[in-house]
Amino acid sequence: MEFATALVFIFIACACGIVWAIFNWMAVHKVEIHHKHEGLTELLQGAEQEKIETLLEIGEHIQDGAQAFLREEYTDCSVFLAIMAVLLIFISPWSSLAFILGAGTSMLCGYLGMAIATAANFRTAFSAITSLANAFQMAYRGGCVMGFLLVSISLAILSLIIIIYNAVIVKSDENNYEDLVRMFDYVAAYGLGGSTFALFGRVGGGIYTKAADVGADLVGKVEKNLPEDSPKNPATIADNVGDNVGDIAGMGADLFGSFAESTCAALVVSSTQLRVQSDTGNTIEIGQLMYPLMVSAFGIGICILVSAYAVYISKVNHINKIESTLKFQLLLSTLALSPIIIGISYWALPPDFIMIAADGSVQLSDLKPYHAFLCSLLGLWSGLLIGYFTEYMTSHSYNPVREVAKSCGTGAATNIIYGLALGYLSTIVPIIAIAVTALLSMKMLSFYGVALAALGMLSNLTIGLAIDAYGPISDNAGGIAEMSELGANVRESTDALDAAGNTTAAIGKGFAIGSAALVSLSLYGGYLTRIQTYKVGDEFPFSEGAKIDDPIIFAMLLIGAMLPYAFSAFTMKSVGKAALQMVEEVRRQLHEHPGIYAGTEEPDFRACIAISTKASLKEMIPPGLLVIVTPTAVGLFFGPQAVAGLLPGALVSGVQMAISASNTGGAWDNAKKYIEAGFYRNEAGEVKKKGSDEHKAAVIGDTVGDPLKDTSGPSLNILIKLMAILSLVLAGAFCRTGWLYQG
Amino acid sequence: MEFATALVFIFIACACGIVWAIFNWMAVHKVEIHHKHEGLTELLQGAEQEKIETLLEIGEHIQDGAQAFLREEYTDCSVFLAIMAVLLIFISPWSSLAFILGAGTSMLCGYLGMAIATAANFRTAFSAITSLANAFQMAYRGGCVMGFLLVSISLAILSLIIIIYNAVIVKSDENNYEDLVRMFDYVAAYGLGGSTFALFGRVGGGIYTKAADVGADLVGKVEKNLPEDSPKNPATIADNVGDNVGDIAGMGADLFGSFAESTCAALVVSSTQLRVQSDTGNTIEIGQLMYPLMVSAFGIGICILVSAYAVYISKVNHINKIESTLKFQLLLSTLALSPIIIGISYWALPPDFIMIAADGSVQLSDLKPYHAFLCSLLGLWSGLLIGYFTEYMTSHSYNPVREVAKSCGTGAATNIIYGLALGYLSTIVPIIAIAVTALLSMKMLSFYGVALAALGMLSNLTIGLAIDAYGPISDNAGGIAEMSELGANVRESTDALDAAGNTTAAIGKGFAIGSAALVSLSLYGGYLTRIQTYKVGDEFPFSEGAKIDDPIIFAMLLIGAMLPYAFSAFTMKSVGKAALQMVEEVRRQLHEHPGIYAGTEEPDFRACIAISTKASLKEMIPPGLLVIVTPTAVGLFFGPQAVAGLLPGALVSGVQMAISASNTGGAWDNAKKYIEAGFYRNEAGEVKKKGSDEHKAAVIGDTVGDPLKDTSGPSLNILIKLMAILSLVLAGAFCRTGWLYQG
Repeated sequence: MEFATALVFIFIACACGIVWAIFNWMAVHKVEIHHKHEGLTELLQGAEQEKIETLLEIGEHIQDGAQAFLREEYTDCSVFLAIMAVLLIFISPWSSLAFILGAGTSMLCGYLGMAIATAANFRTAFSAITSLANAFQMAYRGGCVMGFLLVSISLAILSLIIIIYNAVIVKSDENNYEDLVRMFDYVAAYGLGGSTFALFGRVGGGIYTKAADVGADLVGKVEKNLPEDSPKNPATIADNVGDNVGDIAGMGADLFGSFAESTCAALVVSSTQLRVQSDTGNTIEIGQLMYPLMVSAFGIGICILVSAYAVYISKVNHINKIESTLKFQLLLSTLALSPIIIGISYWALPPDFIMIAADGSVQLSDLKPYHAFLCSLLGLWSGLLIGYFTEYMTSHSYNPVREVAKSCGTGAATNIIYGLALGYLSTIVPIIAIAVTALLSMKMLSFYGVALAALGMLSNLTIGLAIDAYGPISDNAGGIAEMSELGANVRESTDALDAAGNTTAAIGKGFAIGSAALVSLSLYGGYLTRIQTYKVGDEFPFSEGAKIDDPIIFAMLLIGAMLPYAFSAFTMKSVGKAALQMVEEVRRQLHEHPGIYAGTEEPDFRACIAISTKASLKEMIPPGLLVIVTPTAVGLFFGPQAVAGLLPGALVSGVQMAISASNTGGAWDNAKKYIEAGFYRNEAGEVKKKGSDEHKAAVIGDTVGDPLKDTSGPSLNILIKLMAILSLVLAGAFCRTGWLYQG
Repeated sequence: MEFATALVFIFIACACGIVWAIFNWMAVHKVEIHHKHEGLTELLQGAEQEKIETLLEIGEHIQDGAQAFLREEYTDCSVFLAIMAVLLIFISPWSSLAFILGAGTSMLCGYLGMAIATAANFRTAFSAITSLANAFQMAYRGGCVMGFLLVSISLAILSLIIIIYNAVIVKSDENNYEDLVRMFDYVAAYGLGGSTFALFGRVGGGIYTKAADVGADLVGKVEKNLPEDSPKNPATIADNVGDNVGDIAGMGADLFGSFAESTCAALVVSSTQLRVQSDTGNTIEIGQLMYPLMVSAFGIGICILVSAYAVYISKVNHINKIESTLKFQLLLSTLALSPIIIGISYWALPPDFIMIAADGSVQLSDLKPYHAFLCSLLGLWSGLLIGYFTEYMTSHSYNPVREVAKSCGTGAATNIIYGLALGYLSTIVPIIAIAVTALLSMKMLSFYGVALAALGMLSNLTIGLAIDAYGPISDNAGGIAEMSELGANVRESTDALDAAGNTTAAIGKGFAIGSAALVSLSLYGGYLTRIQTYKVGDEFPFSEGAKIDDPIIFAMLLIGAMLPYAFSAFTMKSVGKAALQMVEEVRRQLHEHPGIYAGTEEPDFRACIAISTKASLKEMIPPGLLVIVTPTAVGLFFGPQAVAGLLPGALVSGVQMAISASNTGGAWDNAKKYIEAGFYRNEAGEVKKKGSDEHKAAVIGDTVGDPLKDTSGPSLNILIKLMAILSLVLAGAFCRTGWLYQG
């Protein structure tokens, strides 16, 4: 395929994606809220008008809080990113530029996501007054804006970088591989930038949201018997702001990172190793390397159709339909993308190709396009499998969560034990799926295959993001409905949307983790190729590859496997500390101003927002540094082999912890929802709902699950990805240092 | 060193150890309990006589319950072990015999440990009436019997096996390496037998003890506000039985496994790879291979002196002295053993030696005895470091546990979050210690070095076991004191003994995990050597060693890292399920017989014992099979390389989980003890003790920690060891199969 042809298709797809996002954005904004809204006149009489005004006001507060936090977070991170960008100039100014663009795109995507989510949340609550279907539409469209904007913008910017770097760096004579390789090395810093910011976005946002959530729950639900999202709870607004900065902006940055990194990994590996098999010498053209970007581009197109189906054709007019509609989106996009990916493979790739090793010898030969699409499809379908399995483990429609709910009958301790066991158990299927995908794709196309599998898993990322972002929007809508006291039926609708959202959030996390594992593995492959290239260049004697029985490799494998634990400890304690501050503030307010509890006085929610903001910005630094400093220091002091052990250690351990943390948290949250919805009966057959001992036990589980599922768990994705891409970018430096230990 | 000389020393040491154990056993039994016991006449007036009779009765019930359980457990396991023994005949009848002896020794050690513990527990409670010092003596002497019997008996039996196998199998001509190697291959099944039984002992005992403990706590402490170990709680006796079958018999079997396996690993690796460096060809004699056994033998001797110091010289007459005395034992034995190990190295090993690779080429040359003692000392001292660090993380004398206790002020959820974070954080130091030990000892002496490091860590095993077994004896003593209503001052003494016991138990687990990691690594080395030998023999083309970027290796690394999660899920759910049954039984009794709560009726504790027994025997099967079937199936279907990835995956992941689970549980338990002891003050400065909300939150943490620290956590040691030794024994079979996947 010609480079130009590929670019045309890519940019058309990006344009379509952006247009579709804007269209949905407009559809969301079309819902103008006033009490004369059509069909509402009967519903809203007299006093109801006031509630709508409260709703608008709360929506505004949340928006302001989220914007204020992101502003501060972006300012703080910019300093750090600027330092890294300056350091990267020593690697190359081009890397530094790509890094800045990656970080910038990540920020932009996070900001846009937050903006649409805070616009959709109160409109979802408002729409729930008229019908469940309208409310669902609003939340889902909000998610779509996020999904399509993010993927389209990042693909477009990445393509632009490639065009410019190709024009400037690659000489147009025939033997330009070295230039190509060098160029894609520089481009890889785009992924590094995205991931570096994502780290702070995820961790900072995660701490913010959970400090507020846990703090609000501890005083509100447990001590004072206030319902969730009670307007009397001063931390409620901070909690809702948190959903937007953590689960939306943070998650967006995270998945942008995955997408950018897997594309960069594919480009780095393929430019180094992929060659056309021919009689006239082995060549490759840049257009033929665009296959991964083409898959993403067509992914956008298919996802537009699939989401249009959800918006226009399927009708979510009953609570039971919510989860199935969302799930069906995943299935539909997977089914539709499968033949498309096959087609693109034959179109974009050379009919016969080979992969060469670091020393130029042929590593794999007689490769055909079907090898490539098999890898992509493996990734795509194991993503679906992970998604469905995650749904099974975290939705209260199935046995696992119900068992956890049942265990609340004997108190919080059994709830915790069962929940932890559920999370541990839930690693089995995703891990086997990832392992089989890794095994087969490595067998077929070495690490290029793994990168393609990662991209395959992310090819319906727009849909994945849409249903993922749908979750926090619904969560917020529920909070706003409660705070503006919109009535039980509205709250019932938003609760049902929210329960489905917990599950889709867990699905989204499953995707994020699965793709992170594959991305990280392919980046690791790139890293190994790089350090072996250095060996061939004789600059540094990298011995015989990454053998487990090499002392430094094994030692670092062990230390790498420890990092996710250290990281989780940091983040969880951060949440705990920040939550304690929040608890004290809430207690203080409720104590000093009894009018708040009586409902005659407004709580000072701004003080709570300030606590979350300050704590999260401060607390994100140690875990952030752990991720960035560890591989750098290990590489500089112990050389490239040490890092070759550290990365897979962190990968194989981190992915388990991430899956189990996300699913445990999701299951606890939905076990609580299951009880709240009145599905739980004790041995005597009595229904136990809010206020019962069973519910209190469930709330404790949910509170413990909060930092697991929204702070430490998802941040681990970034840990494993960021360590890998950082090492890839710094591979050359490691090969020249290794001050304390030499092979 | 001559073989005969080595054997003389070994058997003298074993004899001394056994004599010292018997001496302590007699000292324990000398305490005859009747109300006319010297010095007690003033203390026990009138009604008190009845209490002593209750005490004796309860002691008997516990003994009966423990014996009954072990009988059933041994019967059930014997069937399984017999099947394995028959299958092993296909490998070799010698292996089968060694396997049976290993399993038998493991059972014997477990049984003896239980017997002494159930004899020491009520005597400790009784002695606490007179003084803390007496009570401490009793518990500690009980621990000593366990420690010295176990190590001495197992070393003696292993040596006997070597003598016999050597006489029968090894031909006495000069080039007898192949015979030697073959013989030690057979001997290795001794470790396999020990570990296989240990698996069921640990898991079954762990489920038993925690089902009873959790069940008792859930109804007793949380619902009915009964104190711990209340005689009104029908599950109390089962709980106390559990300490003996889980924490004593199970733990004894576990550490016997570690000891036997590390010795076998050292023998297997050294017979294959260790050769004397000489001009007249490279030779080695069996006496020179006895170095590891000599270290263990002298370890027994030193530990006799150290424990005699504790028994005769140090006086534990104040609560504050308990923990420091126990800790000092570790330090003293480490200090004393260091020069001894140095001496043995020069004495037992050839002055110059080499290590050869699978193909006979020289892998490491110019090796001296100091390489060997450095490895052993590294292990010994990192064991001490792990022990001290574990104490820091789990004792309420230090900040980490106090912080967890403080977090109870905001409820159970923060307690859980802080506790989990503490466990995660506590992996850092032990992992770095193990990694550094592994790195340096592999660098010096390859996998032989790792085996020596493991043996070094276990060289003061007798002391480690003694202070470890001290824990459950004290725990039981507390329970018995409570049940026979011996008065607050007695309970205060036993509580203090017990709190120190929680810490020493955690220290013991730290040792167990650290040594398990090293043992497993050295066995892995033996496994790699074996499959490479097969390659050299051209029976199976094992490609280039265990490279992480080999597809099957990486895929299995990932799956291996998942196994500890699956295993923990199984065991934790088993505890949860069994505990729920226990809860129902306790509730039933308390409901149907109100007289129990009023104190006028005896609870039916036998029904509770039956539930724990039945549940644990049934529930130990799935996790047991997971550990045994997985490596076997992977090896048979996917070949030896797949296992070469599976083992390190399980190792690097399992060791983290094991450390974090043990320490989290220990910390929660001691945070609870901290509150109970009245050290906790809330923000307003009020002391919060039993019955407060803070205490309830702490009890929930403790209950969650129970299965973590006493079931899933310690069982993980066995998972990583057993998988490795099983693979070593089956290496040949794997190389001939690999039905689904070939390199």
